[in-house]
Parts: sequence; C-alpha cells; structure tokens
Amino acid sequence: MNRAEVAIPVGVSNRHVHLSQEHWDILFGIGAEPRKFRSVVQPGFYACYETVDLVGPKGKLEKVRLIAPHRPKTQIEISKTDAGMLGIKPPVRDSGKLEGSAGVQVIGPRGSLEVKEGVILAKRHIHFAPEEAAAMGIREGEYVQVRAGAEGERELVFKKVLCRISDKFKLEFHLDADEANASLVKTGDQVKIV
Amino acid sequence: MNRAEVAIPVGVSNRHVHLSQEHWDILFGIGAEPRKFRSVVQPGFYACYETVDLVGPKGKLEKVRLIAPHRPKTQIEISKTDAGMLGIKPPVRDSGKLEGSAGVQVIGPRGSLEVKEGVILAKRHIHFAPEEAAAMGIREGEYVQVRAGAEGERELVFKKVLCRISDKFKLEFHLDADEANASLVKTGDQVKIV
Repeated sequence: MNRAEVAIPVGVSNRHVHLSQEHWDILFGIGAEPRKFRSVVQPGFYACYETVDLVGPKGKLEKVRLIAPHRPKTQIEISKTDAGMLGIKPPVRDSGKLEGSAGVQVIGPRGSLEVKEGVILAKRHIHFAPEEAAAMGIREGEYVQVRAGAEGERELVFKKVLCRISDKFKLEFHLDADEANASLVKTGDQVKIV
Repeated sequence: MNRAEVAIPVGVSNRHVHLSQEHWDILFGIGAEPRKFRSVVQPGFYACYETVDLVGPKGKLEKVRLIAPHRPKTQIEISKTDAGMLGIKPPVRDSGKLEGSAGVQVIGPRGSLEVKEGVILAKRHIHFAPEEAAAMGIREGEYVQVRAGAEGERELVFKKVLCRISDKFKLEFHLDADEANASLVKTGDQVKIV
C-alpha cells in the first residue's frame, strides 16, 4: 500500500490533563474514581466528567478536562495560546517526555497542588496500530510530512510529524487547537502523508 | 534574484480593528482623534492607544487595538481561536473583501454599534514594495508557498500565501496568532518562499 494514498482521520486535541494516582487523590480525594464522559478514538482511553483549573502567573484556564485512566506521571497538554494566557512557556514534547517541562498550579474540587513539571505543547503525531503501520511501511519514531486542509483556504504541510506505533493505538493524526485553527481542519477530517 | 533566497521578515497580526470614520465617531465621539501608540512595519499605519471591546453570542474580547488611519469600511481581524470565544464564524478573506463576512457588537468609550459585516480571519499574505516584487519576480495576486519555523519543532509549509504589491507596502509575511502558534514563529523571525 502506498502510504500517501491512505486517508488518515484527524483528532484535534483540546487542552486536557492526565493525572497520576497521587495527584488525583490530592485533587479529587482518596477513594474517588473518575467518571467516564465519552470515549476517545484511542482504545481504552476516555474523557471524564471531572475537570481541573490551571493557574499560571498571568491567568487561569477553567474546566480543563481529565483523560483517564491515570498515568504514572501527571501530564498536562495545552496549546501555545493557552500557555500565553497562563503566562508559562511549555516546550514542544512527545507524550511522556516531561523532564524540564513547564509547571503550573492545578486546582481540583478537594485540593490543589503545584505541578513542578508536566506541562507540554504536544508534538503533533500520528498513532498507528502495528498492522496499520506495517501496511503503510511506517517505522516507530519515523518522521513524516502531512498535508492538511487540502482544497481549503489554509492548506499547509506539517513537517516533522512523529509516527508512533502501539497495539493500544488506532490510526489517527493528532494536532492541537492552534494547529487545527491554522489549517482549518477539525476532528473527523482526513489528511494524507506526502 | 532567486525568490527562494530572500529572507522575508515575519509580522504576526494580533487581533485588531480598522474603523470607518462614521464608526469611529459613534464609538469615540465626533471630533476625537486616534492617538499613535507605535508604528507598524507597513509605512503610514500605526497602532493606537484606543481599543474597543467585541461582543459575540458566546463571549467577549476586551481591549482590541485600533489601527489607524481609518478606512472606508470597518474591518475587524481576529483569529479562529478568538472567533470560537466570541461564538461567530468569520470567513478567511483577503483584506477589504468583506461582503458576507461576519458581524459582531463593538463597544467603545462613547458608544456602541452592531457591525453587520466586516469580521474576517485574515488570509495570510506577503506585502511587497513594487521594487521588491520586481527583484523577486513576483506578480500581484500570485500565490506562493512559505516555509516557516525551519529547524524548529513545528516547521511547516504554508501553501496558498497571497502576494500583494503596493507602493504603500514593505516586505513582510503576515500571519495571524493561530498560524504563528502552530509554526512557533514570531514577529521578526524570517521565512522563505519555497
């Protein structure tokens, strides 16, 4: 299969938080459990009814949604627009690469805490199930270019799009709200590798 | 000169308003004059101390800066992020092409009004002085592709970048806040045509 022929569904990632169990306990109380609001495309993950507020030196973002299940480390994914409103400077990072990333204050219904690192601008990437990657000749960690918004007023080519392969993944191109607005793509649109 | 060799300075356009004299009079009072806050790169234009608030069905944007001198028609340039906060759907348009564009309520210190059309997402474009365009072989209205954020984590190629030539212009690539955040470029950076 020619990789350039495959229509890849778009998933726009709005700002969200993943919490560690320890941080969940502080923010929502020991013994509480996240409640599923809706599934997301990636198998096993779900958006929750629970939200937190983020507070930075310049401002506040309210009702930032939790994605569950919990992770080993708290990870907070926001856009550069969000970062400007908070007054913090998170780096562009692949999921899980949190060393030296930005901090922020997190406020939950039962408590609050200062996250020292964990705030990132998510590096745009494509998720592949192993069989999808194999069919398209994609290797884990490979970078590709993605054409988005084709035929539209804001068509562009995203360079340096990271390919991530896992049996927990399903084919989807993830970008953040700024990137979606710049190319005028939305969740459910299709893009192609060039 | 090879057009691909020319380093083009970036100007990020934050949300701003241009007012007609009639709308200025309503918002700021007959006889008042805009006061220059700072020059912008394009000759003859300047950002003013004066600001207005914009109100849409979903929310409000405060202190949106005025660019003077006034124009024949009021034109309000915001980002898609801004549009989402206001709850309106402006089209992507070249400056001055306002027919059928979005409306919004505008509030000034001396009055307010309902702008029926005039709100747009500015189409990204490059300004050229005639001698700059001639040296690079650029024609008025031509579309080019621009590589931005080269070497950075969010490098991309903007397709369909409009070229506009005028003796009132100076070489500069204009994009909005969403496009700047998506590519991590900022005012004063340099980009190239590809």
